[in-house]
Amino acid sequence: MTDLLLRDARLWGSATATDLLIRDGVVAATGPGLHPGGAPVEDLRGKLLVPGFVDAHAHVDKTLWGGPWVPHDAPPGLAGKIRNGVERRAELGIPSAGYMTALLERMVADGTTHVRSHVDIDPAVGLKGVEALREALAGMDGRITAELVAFPQTGVLISPGTAELMDAALAEGVELVGGIDPAGLDGDPVRHLDLVFGLADKHGAGVDIHLHDGGPLGGWQYDLIIERTKALGLAGKVTISHGYALGELPLAEQDRLIDGLSSAGVSLATVAPASAAPLPLVRLREAGVPVGAGNDGVRDLWSPYGTGDMLERALFLAQRSRFVRDEELEHALEITTYGGAKLAGRRAGFTPGAPADFVALDTRTPAEAVCLRPTRSLVVKSGRIVARDGQLC
Amino acid sequence: MTDLLLRDARLWGSATATDLLIRDGVVAATGPGLHPGGAPVEDLRGKLLVPGFVDAHAHVDKTLWGGPWVPHDAPPGLAGKIRNGVERRAELGIPSAGYMTALLERMVADGTTHVRSHVDIDPAVGLKGVEALREALAGMDGRITAELVAFPQTGVLISPGTAELMDAALAEGVELVGGIDPAGLDGDPVRHLDLVFGLADKHGAGVDIHLHDGGPLGGWQYDLIIERTKALGLAGKVTISHGYALGELPLAEQDRLIDGLSSAGVSLATVAPASAAPLPLVRLREAGVPVGAGNDGVRDLWSPYGTGDMLERALFLAQRSRFVRDEELEHALEITTYGGAKLAGRRAGFTPGAPADFVALDTRTPAEAVCLRPTRSLVVKSGRIVARDGQLC
Repeated sequence: MTDLLLRDARLWGSATATDLLIRDGVVAATGPGLHPGGAPVEDLRGKLLVPGFVDAHAHVDKTLWGGPWVPHDAPPGLAGKIRNGVERRAELGIPSAGYMTALLERMVADGTTHVRSHVDIDPAVGLKGVEALREALAGMDGRITAELVAFPQTGVLISPGTAELMDAALAEGVELVGGIDPAGLDGDPVRHLDLVFGLADKHGAGVDIHLHDGGPLGGWQYDLIIERTKALGLAGKVTISHGYALGELPLAEQDRLIDGLSSAGVSLATVAPASAAPLPLVRLREAGVPVGAGNDGVRDLWSPYGTGDMLERALFLAQRSRFVRDEELEHALEITTYGGAKLAGRRAGFTPGAPADFVALDTRTPAEAVCLRPTRSLVVKSGRIVARDGQLC
Repeated sequence: MTDLLLRDARLWGSATATDLLIRDGVVAATGPGLHPGGAPVEDLRGKLLVPGFVDAHAHVDKTLWGGPWVPHDAPPGLAGKIRNGVERRAELGIPSAGYMTALLERMVADGTTHVRSHVDIDPAVGLKGVEALREALAGMDGRITAELVAFPQTGVLISPGTAELMDAALAEGVELVGGIDPAGLDGDPVRHLDLVFGLADKHGAGVDIHLHDGGPLGGWQYDLIIERTKALGLAGKVTISHGYALGELPLAEQDRLIDGLSSAGVSLATVAPASAAPLPLVRLREAGVPVGAGNDGVRDLWSPYGTGDMLERALFLAQRSRFVRDEELEHALEITTYGGAKLAGRRAGFTPGAPADFVALDTRTPAEAVCLRPTRSLVVKSGRIVARDGQLC
């Protein structure tokens, strides 16, 4: 593990710069004039230091990053995109450890130090996505950590054989079990969720469920997820991804669900899309519900967009939520750092023992960083310098 | 005026690269193997060449670009923002030719070759904004062209003395007369519009009216503007900025208004905000209504956001309109180039006689450029190289 002294760093939340000493990949101490004790010294000259970005909702396995420009031609709607994704996968060589590596390298260069990636599992692709992503991550040699979600993109009940593959993936160490629109896509929310939570219970895995279903249909499934989380004692291990419904429901119903999420220990992951109701981020924070953000698919058969940059995602999140004040812009930055870490059950920050995952930014204020997205001056993962001035080390 | 030969340029719309010869600041010829005839030669090595970006809706006079980070503290709502903008202006040294210059330089480095900037005119600031922006533009020494709008940010009828100042600004050569929410802010749409169009008629000026008023109230004011444009024969010289109402109305009403815009020769300018209904861009194009895009205020008392980059604005526009196919992404790029030029009554493109305003992009396709926003490899204004690799020349 790595030692490092970050000299003259403006720790986010402090007005003045100080030193931060890293021992064995975690924070050892902060304070002025620390002695490096043999550790290499990196002088940040007053730059802002924030925790490493956590991409809390990615689909690294599907990316075409670093590959050809593939014009988007999926039919509209969820079902059409699923079908298109499956049909064109082989032709384009997806899943590809090479494309995944290219994207992971870009993510690290832009300051992402941990990623939760959903990985498609279905009878056609089997566990190839998991294997390729494991290969790509091994090649990253610790520059980024990851947790995978065994994700039934094509449904579970409507896609025979998928549940068994998810079971196998979890047995092989995949950290979380996924789900998708238990009602809207899979057609039987109670059986879908019982199956998903049953797999989590069996393997001691976390849960992360894609929920695009809107309005009352989505809200009702929030209740089903909250209920199962409580029943199985999975507080802190369950995430609802997207969950657009929450932002669409009447305020009183939102408050009821937020209370439910809070009491059950369920977190939310958002990708802040341009055309869906934003989550009620301020009320979620007041209720202590962890919220993380992610880049979703990056240049894949689902979308031509994306760069993997979480600071850009913070901008989208802030703009979509009409955030303009400094404390609001910092809230967006918190979601992409502390929020994602909490969702993933990781520590973050500057207290001793926290993982030494940091990004140094040449900016006057955290709010300004969200608006301008400066090049990442330095990225540190587990105490090791992994990128400098936007370039991988 | 400047001569230049652009060698091996992929002209947007062509599959293969060719040469483009510039004489006296305009396109002289395109074709393979052109002889420079004494002109300097710039080898683009197959890079994509697109017309220079036109920022069709800017408020350069209000910017704090290059100045301190000023936390946003305006009260919500249009009236609160207007009051805040007026109250804090003097304290921050706005309008400032220095800040304007800093922003204009950034805009040029990012490929904007023409800008339409609204400039606040009110009894307190008088014509200082116009004078400062003229000073900043003079300092740009032709690297960017501009047209100004005499903009009554604080209203006309409710702000006595403003109309006289707008009259004076137009007499001194300001190109367009502005207006703002004739009903919602100024309280008397008929008198407001009669006054604005009267000034346009008196000075032979164009018209560009901010219209935030939504739904039927905004739609009705579209009708008033269309009616006056026809009555005064101002086809091609009138723009509605923002015009959110159009995207909010029922489809049949949208179609009726689009027909009206088309027959009157009224154009639209949008800033593609994250939280307003997008304009029906495809139907507007089918009807031949020119649509331009702009960055609106860039880091000012109205908003902490913005960088002045029109390629980023094309991304926001595309995402907000749920554009994903290549032809849709190119539509967003068209709006930021050809669309803005048409709105401003300027030629654009590669045909002989067109202004030699171009941006070279290191990208495989125009669609990819919208998604990835590469550094501008070369920016040419009136045949002169004004920026290279994102840096002003």
